[in-house]
Order: sequence, then C-alpha cells, then structure tokens
Amino acid sequence: MIQGIGASSGIAIGKAFVLPTWEWDLPDQRIDSIDLAKEFERLYEGVRTSKNEIEFLKQEFREVVGPDQSSIFDAHLAILEDPVFMSEIQGIIERQYTAAEVAVKEAIDHFVKMFDLLDDEYMKERALDIKDVGNRLLKHLLGAPEITLPSDTNPYLLVAKELSPSQLANLNQNYVLGIATLQGGRTSHSAIMARALGIPFVLGLEGKLDDPIQTGDMLVIDGGDGTVFVNPAEEVLLEYTQLRDEQTEKKSKLRQLANVPAVTVDGTEMRLQANISSLKELNVALSHGACGVGLFRTEFLYMDRQHFPEEEEQFDVYREVAEKVGANHVVIRTLDIGGDKHLDYFALPEEDNPFLGYRAIRICLDRKELFKTQLRAILRASHYGNVKIMYPMISSLDEVREANEVLAEAKRELDQKGLPYNAQIPVGIMVEVPAAVTIADLLADEVDFFSIGTNDLVQYVLAVDRMNEQISHMYNPFHPAILRLLRMTVEAAKTKGIPISVCGELAGDERALALWVALGVHDLSMSAHSILHLKSRVLEMRKTDCLELKDKLYQCRTHREIEQLLHEFALHK
Amino acid sequence: MIQGIGASSGIAIGKAFVLPTWEWDLPDQRIDSIDLAKEFERLYEGVRTSKNEIEFLKQEFREVVGPDQSSIFDAHLAILEDPVFMSEIQGIIERQYTAAEVAVKEAIDHFVKMFDLLDDEYMKERALDIKDVGNRLLKHLLGAPEITLPSDTNPYLLVAKELSPSQLANLNQNYVLGIATLQGGRTSHSAIMARALGIPFVLGLEGKLDDPIQTGDMLVIDGGDGTVFVNPAEEVLLEYTQLRDEQTEKKSKLRQLANVPAVTVDGTEMRLQANISSLKELNVALSHGACGVGLFRTEFLYMDRQHFPEEEEQFDVYREVAEKVGANHVVIRTLDIGGDKHLDYFALPEEDNPFLGYRAIRICLDRKELFKTQLRAILRASHYGNVKIMYPMISSLDEVREANEVLAEAKRELDQKGLPYNAQIPVGIMVEVPAAVTIADLLADEVDFFSIGTNDLVQYVLAVDRMNEQISHMYNPFHPAILRLLRMTVEAAKTKGIPISVCGELAGDERALALWVALGVHDLSMSAHSILHLKSRVLEMRKTDCLELKDKLYQCRTHREIEQLLHEFALHK
Repeated sequence: MIQGIGASSGIAIGKAFVLPTWEWDLPDQRIDSIDLAKEFERLYEGVRTSKNEIEFLKQEFREVVGPDQSSIFDAHLAILEDPVFMSEIQGIIERQYTAAEVAVKEAIDHFVKMFDLLDDEYMKERALDIKDVGNRLLKHLLGAPEITLPSDTNPYLLVAKELSPSQLANLNQNYVLGIATLQGGRTSHSAIMARALGIPFVLGLEGKLDDPIQTGDMLVIDGGDGTVFVNPAEEVLLEYTQLRDEQTEKKSKLRQLANVPAVTVDGTEMRLQANISSLKELNVALSHGACGVGLFRTEFLYMDRQHFPEEEEQFDVYREVAEKVGANHVVIRTLDIGGDKHLDYFALPEEDNPFLGYRAIRICLDRKELFKTQLRAILRASHYGNVKIMYPMISSLDEVREANEVLAEAKRELDQKGLPYNAQIPVGIMVEVPAAVTIADLLADEVDFFSIGTNDLVQYVLAVDRMNEQISHMYNPFHPAILRLLRMTVEAAKTKGIPISVCGELAGDERALALWVALGVHDLSMSAHSILHLKSRVLEMRKTDCLELKDKLYQCRTHREIEQLLHEFALHK
Repeated sequence: MIQGIGASSGIAIGKAFVLPTWEWDLPDQRIDSIDLAKEFERLYEGVRTSKNEIEFLKQEFREVVGPDQSSIFDAHLAILEDPVFMSEIQGIIERQYTAAEVAVKEAIDHFVKMFDLLDDEYMKERALDIKDVGNRLLKHLLGAPEITLPSDTNPYLLVAKELSPSQLANLNQNYVLGIATLQGGRTSHSAIMARALGIPFVLGLEGKLDDPIQTGDMLVIDGGDGTVFVNPAEEVLLEYTQLRDEQTEKKSKLRQLANVPAVTVDGTEMRLQANISSLKELNVALSHGACGVGLFRTEFLYMDRQHFPEEEEQFDVYREVAEKVGANHVVIRTLDIGGDKHLDYFALPEEDNPFLGYRAIRICLDRKELFKTQLRAILRASHYGNVKIMYPMISSLDEVREANEVLAEAKRELDQKGLPYNAQIPVGIMVEVPAAVTIADLLADEVDFFSIGTNDLVQYVLAVDRMNEQISHMYNPFHPAILRLLRMTVEAAKTKGIPISVCGELAGDERALALWVALGVHDLSMSAHSILHLKSRVLEMRKTDCLELKDKLYQCRTHREIEQLLHEFALHK
C-alpha cells in the first residue's frame, strides 16, 4: 500500500497503462535566407493549428464539466496571441536564419527563464503555461504525432509522471478508469479538472514507489484518501471491489429520485433548480430532475467567439431553453463579465482588484446598446415560456432604475417592430453585494424577486477572495455574519411579499439545507450534479427539526460553533 | 485668458521660469574588452547612486506630504532591483562591448517598446516608470548636472512641458509659487503630488497658447478652475491678487483656532484627533490643535528599510509619541500591511484581489513572533502615556481571541523581564470589514473600543475599489447602506457601553460632520490638515439641527437624496 495525495475521490480498479513522455529532436541546420518567408508561413500555420486545437479542447471540456474550469485554456490562447511572444520568435528566425521550431524552442526557454527569474508565484505559473503551449506548437511544427492512449484494450488506469490540462482534456473517459501521477498538487489545474470530470485521481507518488509502475500492473486507487495498491493481494482486491460497487449502487439509487418531488417528511416542498450556462447543461439538469432553471449564466454565450452575439442568436438560445423547461421558470441573468471572466474581443481594463471593479451590471449600464440587445432577446423569448430577468451585482436603487429604463426602451423597440413578448415579465436582482442586503427592504419595493448569490456575498462580507490560497481557509459561508445577513434578506423579501431564492454555492451545500428549510427559502438553484443528492436529504428531513436547529444556530458566536451544530444535525438524521 | 485643467487648487501670481528639457549625447565608441569590468563597476555605481537619490527623494517627500503618496517612488526602486532589467543591460555590455550608458539606453528602449506592445494601461504606466528611472541612471553615468531651479531670484511660477514626480519632489517650495505644464492629466502622479504639497497647478495647456510662455512673463494661474493669464491686464492682476489674499487671510484665521475646544453652539464637545504615521506628523498635528492621536499607522515604521524593526526601536518611537501627546490618548494600530502596502524585505504573495487578500491582522496571526514583538513594544510604551492598542481588519471573534492570546503572551514575557506596562491597556478594533459591522454586538462584548475605518468599509460594502478609475464614481460614502451600517455599529457600541470613534476619511469630511454629531460619535480622527477647518464648522453647529437632519437622512433611498440634504444643510449654516 502506497500513500499518495487524494486529488479526486472515487475508487478505480484495473490494469495500469503508463504514459510515455514526449521528447523531440530539433533540426540543427540553419536555413537559407531564401526560405525565410516559408518559415514564417510554417510558424503561422503552426499557431493557427494549435489555436484551433486548444479551442476544440476547451469546447469539449466545457460541455463535459461546465464553463468554470474551461477558462484554463484561455490563458493558453492568450499566449499564442501575445505580440511580444510572437515577435520574439520572428526575431530569432530573422536574425539567426533558424527553422521555426528552433526559434520556438529558444523563445520558450527565454521566456520561461525570464519569468522564473522574477521569483513570483504568478509568473512561475505563467512560465508553465508558456511551456505547455510551446510544446503544442512544437509538436505541430515537427509533425510529431499526438500521443494516443490505447482504445482497443479493456479500460485501464492511466499512470504518468505528470499530466497537463491539455492531456487530461484529451483522454477518452470510456477507457480511463482513474489516474495516478508522480507529481502535481491537489490544487493544480489537472486535479481541478479530474474532480470536475469525476475521474478518481491520486497524485504525489514520487519517491514512494519501490519499483516504477509498469504497463499491465494491477492497480487499485482510492482518490478519496490517496491510497494506491500495486498488484495487491486477492483480499484487498475483493474489499475494494465491494467498496466501489457500493459507491456505484448509491449513485444509481439517486438516479431513481429524478422524478420524485423534494418534500420534507412533514410536507414542506423544496424546488430544486439548476444553474446552467448552455443547452447541453440544461439537458443534464432536466435528466437530474431540475425544477426549472434558477440561474442561466448568459456570459458563456459571449465567450469563445470573435464578437458580441447578435440579438437573433441569443433569442434562439433563450427561446429553446424556455421551451424545453416548459411550465417551470427560467431565470436569465444578464451579462455578468468582469471580475475573473473576460471576453477575447472586449478589452477590459487591467485592475488591481477586479472583484471590486468594473463588472456585470456596471459594464452593462456603461454600454447600454450591448445591454439592450440582450434585453430584447430575453424579452422575445419570454413569449415562449416562463422567463424572468435578473440583474447581477446590484448595489443601489439607482442601478435598478437605470437598468429598467433600458428595459423599457427595449420593450418600446419591440412594440415598434410588432414582436411579441411578455409585458409583465418579472424583473429581479442578485443580492450579492453587502450594500444590497443592507437596503434589501428598499430594493424589494422596486423589483419582483431576489436571488441570493452567496459566493460573492461571502467574499465581500468577509473581505476574502476564495481563490486566494493564502487565505481561502477564511472563506467561511457559516460565519455568523453571513447567517444574519441571509436572514435579513429573507425577512425583507417576505415582509414586502416578493419571492426569494438562492443560487450561490450554498444552495447546493447539504450542510446549509436545513437553514433554507427553516428560513422558508423554498427555491434553491444549484449545479445539476447536486440536485439528486440534495433531494435525497430533503426527503429525510422535518421542517420542525430545522426550525429548532435554526434557533440554536442564531445563538452561535463563531463559525466553528455553527459548523459543529450543523454537523451534529446531519449525524442525527 | 487660457483655459487649462485645474490640478491643484489655489491662486499663484508671479514671473514665469521656463524649465529647459534634459537632452544628452551618448558616447558612440565601442570599448575594448579590457574595460568590461570597469563598465560593470560604473553601472553598479550608477545604480547605487540612483537608488540613494530616489530613497532620499522619497524620504523628503514623505515628511512633507505623509506616506500615502511617497509610494510612487517604490515602483522606481523596484525597477533598479529587477534582475531581468539588470541582466538585460549587462548582456548588452558583454555582447556588444558598449559603454554602460549605451547599454542602459538600449535596454530602456527595449523594455519601453515591449511594454508598449502589450497594449495594456498598467504596462504602459510601467514603461513610463522605466523611462523615468532610466533617465536618472543615464544622468549619473554621463555625469550630467542636475537641472537646478534658480534660487537667487524672487519666487516664480514654474513652466514646463511635463513634470515628473522626481522633479516635483525636488523643487524648493520657497521659490515655486505655482506650476503650469503643457501635458499631464488630473490623475497623474505629479498632479497628486502637487495637491499633497498644496502647490497651485494647472496642466494641459498644450495647443492652447498662441506663443510659448517665456521666462520672465507675468503669470496668473488659478489651480481650482484651470485659468491661466499670460502678461494680464492691470485689473486682472488686481482682481486675482485680492482673491489670493482672501484665501491667505482665511487660512491664517483658521490657525487661531488651534487652542479652542471644538464645541457646538449648544454645548456638544467633539474631540478632533489626528491620524499620524511618524513623529514629524505628530508635530504638525499638535500644532493644528489635535486632541490626541486616534490612529497611529505603525506600518510606516516598517517601510523604507532592510528588515523588520526591533522591539527597542519601535518602543522608542511609541514612547516618544505617547509622551508628547500627554494626557490625550494615542491609539496604536498594529501592523497593517498587504492590500496596497508592501515591505521591501517581506515578500507577500502576488494576489488577484489584494484588498480581499492576505493583509493586516491576517498576516500578524500567521507570523506571531513578528506580531508579538510589536505588541511588546506597544505595551512598554503604555507605561509612559495614555496608549491603546487597535487591531485592523477584524472580521470575527476568533481573530480577536487569537490576537489577545498573543498579547497575553507578550505581557507574560514582559513580566518575566520585570519591564513595566499598563496591565489594563485598552484593546480595540477597526470596524472596516462588513462582517464586523454585522456582528458588532458580539464583538463589543470582547473588545474595549471600536474605531470605524470608513475607507475600507465603503469599498467592501459597495464592492468598489476607489483607486479604480473606471468605477471610482461608485465609491459613495453617502450610500444609504453605509449610513445604516454606521448607525448599526454606533448602536452596538452604545448598547454595550464601549467608546466608538471614526478614523477613516469620512471623519475629516465636513459633509459627514453633522451625522457624527447626531449619532453621538464625538471622537473623530483625521488628517492633521483637516482639523482646523472641521473645528471651525463645529463651532457654528447646533446638535438639535443635526438630530433633525439625521432623521431626514435616514428616510432617504439614494445617495443623491442624502447628498442633496447634506448640501442644503451646509448652505443654511
């Protein structure tokens, strides 16, 4: 038994396939000046092919795991579009009359060395990206074949020194049961991707193996605790096979809940909805029994393309989503870019603190034509289903009023063209800025519904960027301040009689479920993958217990006390 | 009359002195390989001299205007310490056998071009910094004389194409009445510095002058509205002389208020205290009649040096401040670095959102020895005056408790050594994170006082980085959410019976004064330069009027309504 680091949970059992490492020979000869143009052409061709390939990977990956992780590839595309990187390569070809591949290799080495020199974590990560992209470009220039994994064998466990995000995105899930690597860390891009794909993954085996794993060895890995067995004894194999089968069984039982309504033992119905970014995700969500769409993140319609999407194109998507969802509602959130989400064709300013910057509704109110185009598309879709509009990042009444003016204009324009829409379309806001919670009573007078965005709210209230590893342990959604602010928002909505839902991650967090039941928030919108599990929990709960728990929670003074209570509550179910 | 851009208010009248531009000839010859070592030595010597010069400028500047603006020079120092920049220069000398100055020139051009290529505002500004620093280094290598301004004439108005921060920091305020430049913008570093120095400054005159201004021309500038007159008529001269004299008169009247207590007409006493970062600033503060120090920003003791300050060194400063202040209190805030404040010798991680990152108490609780050293120094100073301790960026009870454990340890260590301190030293917190406001009642049970840090609080509550020009118009301290949170914090403190003060910029903002009077917040701590003006306003106020105003303010739904009321209130005084 070897103890690695568990990077993506689940048990995998099968034969090992060891991935060979890429190594290439570079041509050494200088070229005649007559061929300069040809080398440039080869370089451009290589860049084009690499870009297409990355775009394709990104697309593929997004459809499998959703858009949050696919932005890893944006960094790679950016490098191939970077004028400094490209002019460096061209300069080397010109000055030294070398083949394009030699110039690429030299440029990569130069930049990697330069970034490494800066002694700065961020720059070092950029150096890794440059290496990954450079290797892809080199592969095309050299005409080296893509390393393909066997697909004529039984499914296997992939073993490698290290796995780049590109390699992980490339692999065929039908053949790869699990992954074990020597290097890498739990927070590496590859680990994040494996979790998103649901592939068991153990890493950090370097120095822990007596003999290197060979292709054909029998392997057992537990991605939860990081355990690895190479050619294990029969009883180990039996034990882990049983564990794996239990996990599989549990999953298939959950599947059967898809069409069961989520009602507590004492009759409180919860409506578990899905957060989606595309039609594909909608299909997954519906197959998991989603009660409509509580958050349609439209920014992903704007990404991976060369220009803003036209009204027609947006309309087609919104309409199709609305029609597929049927009687249940679809809450369409207007464009929410900025922060950590960017568009290739819309240059946002470089910001010291992008989370406190130019983003979401702030951009839309600054670029009203852009905003109005989207509003027209949403309005037109409202004729075909139960569509609602939601503005993100609202912090004041002024913003709501200004956005509504644009909406009124969009309606007038549709009237002039005689295009149908639901004139009474409900308009709501994300409550995610602390200011919005503080004036929730005032906002409730002027909007039709609230949806609490817990992710940003927690970040702002605690002043913690949860992506920042140095302080991510302080990102604590069960901080007593958060509980109070949630209650405040719910009370404001109930007093003013407008519906309230939650669409941040806390909506899909089973620990928070009892709190929502007790606060009377019945609409929760979450990742499709969480719906069935949450439903299984709702079916075992009693609202009376939740209410009792709630009273205790609001007596707590620290997040530890709150987590302890929630933990005990879960155990006693 | 010419209309420029007013960049720093005030009227200046006098003769023009036109600054010649720096231009240098570079030696063209290559050097023998035998001299390589000599060129390296010349380069290092030039870098050392440049660094000393920048350090000196920074120090000088800081003493005049305080620490906030002097960080402009840190960017310059960083360039001279950048390994990539230096190895580029060395590489050119080695490969091309050129003189150091030629290599410096080439390296500057290279980097400026490279950064310019990136088409990114931040990088372009870095290019300007590199140019400025490179010019300084060139000047030393060439042995070119510093351009000196005349000091044997009457005071004059300085006229230049453009003024770099270094040039501005260099000038002798006894001789420069005001500044007019052709280029530059209101938010340029030079404009910020001129405002800090209180020098009238008009810029953006390019293309607006029929003839270039000549040394000796008579000039009148109004840095408030950007008006410039060249050789004006007698009556213009008279009018502006009168205006200027009125401004001077007003200032000298304010001076006389230094020793008058700040009491409203109906008897409410306000204690106007100073925010300081050094002994020098304390002297200014006391001469402006500060009632003690409400915020001693200790991080500036940690800056501009090679290592963390020792306990003794800190103790000496804290003790001297405490003794100088006498009976009034000195609130010492523990180390508040991170965010936008860095130390040369303590590498902080690169962060995407430093304001939501690793900073202040978060660093101190992570580096407890560092923290304890400071606490011991503060404790020891508490024996010599009315000293209080204040923790910044508190967001939970856990943090207070953890910090207090370190404090208890520091006390035990002093006990062991038999060193005296005030065992009952009051320990308070900055209320600046939204979470702290939300659980202010819980925090008030465990600390001795609150001080509201309005700058960060507003940033977090509205999710607006006020340094971000794209959205700085949204940084609105008079947002109704802010007013509610301020009231909530004050009520929590009063209910629990602990003192509350304010030390953010809103404390020195005359528009907010009536609100503080009405809320019963009597301790305001501000920039020394605001104290006398605020006092003059307190002396004219009535608490009864303020209370009436307060009721109206809390009826408002938008910041515009609130600002309108505050504006009307100011007019009716």
